[in-house]
Amino acid sequence: MAADAFQQYLEKTRTLADLSAAVAVLGWDQETYMPDGAAQGRAEQISTLSALVHQMTVERGYGDLIRTLSDSSNGNGLEEWQKASLKESLRDLEMATKLPEEHVRECARATSLAQHSWKQARAEKNYALFADALAHLVELKRNEAGYLGYAENPYDALIDQFEPGMTVAQLTPVFTRLREGTRVLLERIAAAPNKPDDAVLFTDFDKEKQLAYSREMVAKLGFNFGIGRVDLSAHPFCTSFGMTDVRLTTRVFNDDLRSCLFGLIHEAGHGMYEQGVDPAYTRTPLASGTSMGIHESQSLFWENMIARSEPFWQWAFPGLQSTFPGPLGSLDASGFFRAINVVKPSFIRIESDELTYNLHIVIRFEIENALINGQITVADVPELWNSKMREYLGITPADDAEGCLQDVHWSFGGFGYFPSYTLGKLYAAMFYRQMKREIPDLEAQISSGQFANVLAWLREKIHRWGKSKRSATLVMEICNEPLSESAFLEYMTGKVERVYGLG
Amino acid sequence: MAADAFQQYLEKTRTLADLSAAVAVLGWDQETYMPDGAAQGRAEQISTLSALVHQMTVERGYGDLIRTLSDSSNGNGLEEWQKASLKESLRDLEMATKLPEEHVRECARATSLAQHSWKQARAEKNYALFADALAHLVELKRNEAGYLGYAENPYDALIDQFEPGMTVAQLTPVFTRLREGTRVLLERIAAAPNKPDDAVLFTDFDKEKQLAYSREMVAKLGFNFGIGRVDLSAHPFCTSFGMTDVRLTTRVFNDDLRSCLFGLIHEAGHGMYEQGVDPAYTRTPLASGTSMGIHESQSLFWENMIARSEPFWQWAFPGLQSTFPGPLGSLDASGFFRAINVVKPSFIRIESDELTYNLHIVIRFEIENALINGQITVADVPELWNSKMREYLGITPADDAEGCLQDVHWSFGGFGYFPSYTLGKLYAAMFYRQMKREIPDLEAQISSGQFANVLAWLREKIHRWGKSKRSATLVMEICNEPLSESAFLEYMTGKVERVYGLG
Repeated sequence: MAADAFQQYLEKTRTLADLSAAVAVLGWDQETYMPDGAAQGRAEQISTLSALVHQMTVERGYGDLIRTLSDSSNGNGLEEWQKASLKESLRDLEMATKLPEEHVRECARATSLAQHSWKQARAEKNYALFADALAHLVELKRNEAGYLGYAENPYDALIDQFEPGMTVAQLTPVFTRLREGTRVLLERIAAAPNKPDDAVLFTDFDKEKQLAYSREMVAKLGFNFGIGRVDLSAHPFCTSFGMTDVRLTTRVFNDDLRSCLFGLIHEAGHGMYEQGVDPAYTRTPLASGTSMGIHESQSLFWENMIARSEPFWQWAFPGLQSTFPGPLGSLDASGFFRAINVVKPSFIRIESDELTYNLHIVIRFEIENALINGQITVADVPELWNSKMREYLGITPADDAEGCLQDVHWSFGGFGYFPSYTLGKLYAAMFYRQMKREIPDLEAQISSGQFANVLAWLREKIHRWGKSKRSATLVMEICNEPLSESAFLEYMTGKVERVYGLG
Repeated sequence: MAADAFQQYLEKTRTLADLSAAVAVLGWDQETYMPDGAAQGRAEQISTLSALVHQMTVERGYGDLIRTLSDSSNGNGLEEWQKASLKESLRDLEMATKLPEEHVRECARATSLAQHSWKQARAEKNYALFADALAHLVELKRNEAGYLGYAENPYDALIDQFEPGMTVAQLTPVFTRLREGTRVLLERIAAAPNKPDDAVLFTDFDKEKQLAYSREMVAKLGFNFGIGRVDLSAHPFCTSFGMTDVRLTTRVFNDDLRSCLFGLIHEAGHGMYEQGVDPAYTRTPLASGTSMGIHESQSLFWENMIARSEPFWQWAFPGLQSTFPGPLGSLDASGFFRAINVVKPSFIRIESDELTYNLHIVIRFEIENALINGQITVADVPELWNSKMREYLGITPADDAEGCLQDVHWSFGGFGYFPSYTLGKLYAAMFYRQMKREIPDLEAQISSGQFANVLAWLREKIHRWGKSKRSATLVMEICNEPLSESAFLEYMTGKVERVYGLG
């Protein structure tokens, strides 16, 4: 009986998975190959298919099936993954039904307008042009928190959409200690007598060669081109149409060697996660990464812990040098490692280094929390932003375009999203510390270009579980401790000491 | 009241159009960029979305709406295009509902098996391996003709799926006279003392240059890259996701200059048709070409009447020659024109020339008609094929792989499809003759590289109407006469006389 009902449920999840995959294909094509003139038609196609996904998600018969199966799931002989799948479906259903249609429509309208006014405000460096739209979005998001429900802090309800179960109460002490540890490290860096020079990275590198080198590199790391591919787009991303079809994109600049290579390795980290989910979860709600934070941990692991490490370049540098003998001829592996790890406070989040990046996130987190809790208003944001930049990073934006207007997220209503980025860094460092304990010769493997054990470890501990385990469970099971900043600060201290000749 | 109901109907056609466009995007990606390992997942996605299209097409409420609106469409103030849209929807609905689900399922099963056995049979040159599957398909298609209904000949019901309204009774006299006219021309060619030499076409041409030249050429002809693009695939095709997103593909061989260029011009002919449909028809059933035959007339018009003509190469040859100065250095426009128009009976349909191509189609037509009417059995096909090849083309296939097993169509149940190809040739020649009457200096325009009037004529007379006019109506309105072979034979005679120095 339960087996029959579960089969019925699976048929529905497959339809939903296939429709969602089609939406993802439409989105991928839009960013890679679609001709410009097709934009309006494509927006309509995506909107129609997304509406069908929503309709099917909230359809009464399907909801009843999920609830009935979930209610009886302890006694009906379902396997663990089947129960986890039901749990995800129930979460999707609740997310989709808790929000009144009127609210969803108003959010769509408001974000569409806000994106327009944000673009204008940023271009004209005039925050006032965005303030009203932002205030409306904040109000809508406060309402949304009410609809979704929360135990303690309305901002929790928003964070939960991207990192299920994460709360302000958990994040605040971690972020505070992270900020303090970062301050200490930045002071040591400022006092360092011997600063690395990264000018060589911004000379002239053939774009075709960069792309070919980067593709080969992610294949060596373990991205499977038999079930994935790489294309170009204005902004790098990873998207998946199921674990057997994972698409990465990157971009290439002649005068910045980092963008294509590290961008693609980052996306390949996301991609290997998607490719590694247990095939048994195909076309179920479990067939994807479990949270934004864990997803980001996988991309950052490969980008930073592996591909910005000294052992990695001991192995890889000769190949890179022979690809670009002109610009890199007089450099060595250690010099290259130092160049790609320069730490320097900067105004723009996406251009900042591994260490100061988190300070941008902490500022967003603190401001979002205050906005959603009504402790500040939209009018307070620019001055608060600038004073926090001064306090944490020691620099003051010249205008709001390089300050609080720099990121698109708020304009599409993405409150609660920013913490994921730093969560990714913290998780990645925790996983790395644990991996070193379990693979004692890890650095030796990396410095000889062997990544099979690294990938196998991530597969075994993280990838294969897809969404069947929440991030807190994964972290606790893998590291035997909850989220903390200590592994990250330990890792960054080690790296900074090598790069700046300290210690 | 009718306006409200029509609006309701339009909302439904938009959903159907968007879903169908998504299916087309999934198909395009499958043939161009999809990694091999994604094949099974993609097949499931396409199947799921196609099933949704079917479900929505036959949904009772939608059917009632179409029928009510159609029944009252003479008195309810609807515009002509709105009535035409309802007519198309009614046709789609009837096509979808006349076939019992059991039959559709069995066809899907049978064609899946047949494609497998056809591949094997062709590879092993062993017709017997395909015979049983083919016999089953013929039986299913005879049943299908019964479900669909027909006035005179069951084969009519199958042809109607690709060329609405076309019948064996109309085709037979036309094809018979075409065969006879072709025989006469082939005899004149055989007796010609002065045969052109096309060996130069099969020397060595840089693939990147071929592709770049071909892209530029279709842009010059009028294919709009703002709402379209070109990619590579194993077999060239054109697909459309709406008139603002039309995708062409081509393939390139080093040792055959014709394939990439003429293949792409052919597909661009299809593409310009799709791009030219009246924007008022967006997301309705009218937003596409009206029949396979008219579609093929547009591709063949540009490929043959324009791009295989002498005036065209008087204009284009210097550019082609400077692109490939090595192989083409000692040739002139006239020599190139003669080389690309060599007529020579050959075994393989898709490799055959403009004239003898139709004989392959006539053979398919005669055999399909006899099979569907039970005048022959599947066992008779190989010998009948070979004897017709001898009679019409004067050559005998060495085995069935270069005989009746060469084409994939039967294995997917595409009976009734083949006549479209020759219909395309006949329509194209009729349109060309009419265009010359209405644009007296047409050849002078072509020989100076001006195609704007050609495209504008096709747009005005054919493209913009989309599916709102059936092929017979279009042909009669444009040419003031019904389908006939005379324009084609007149056109071919003129060309053959130039190429072979006759006349």
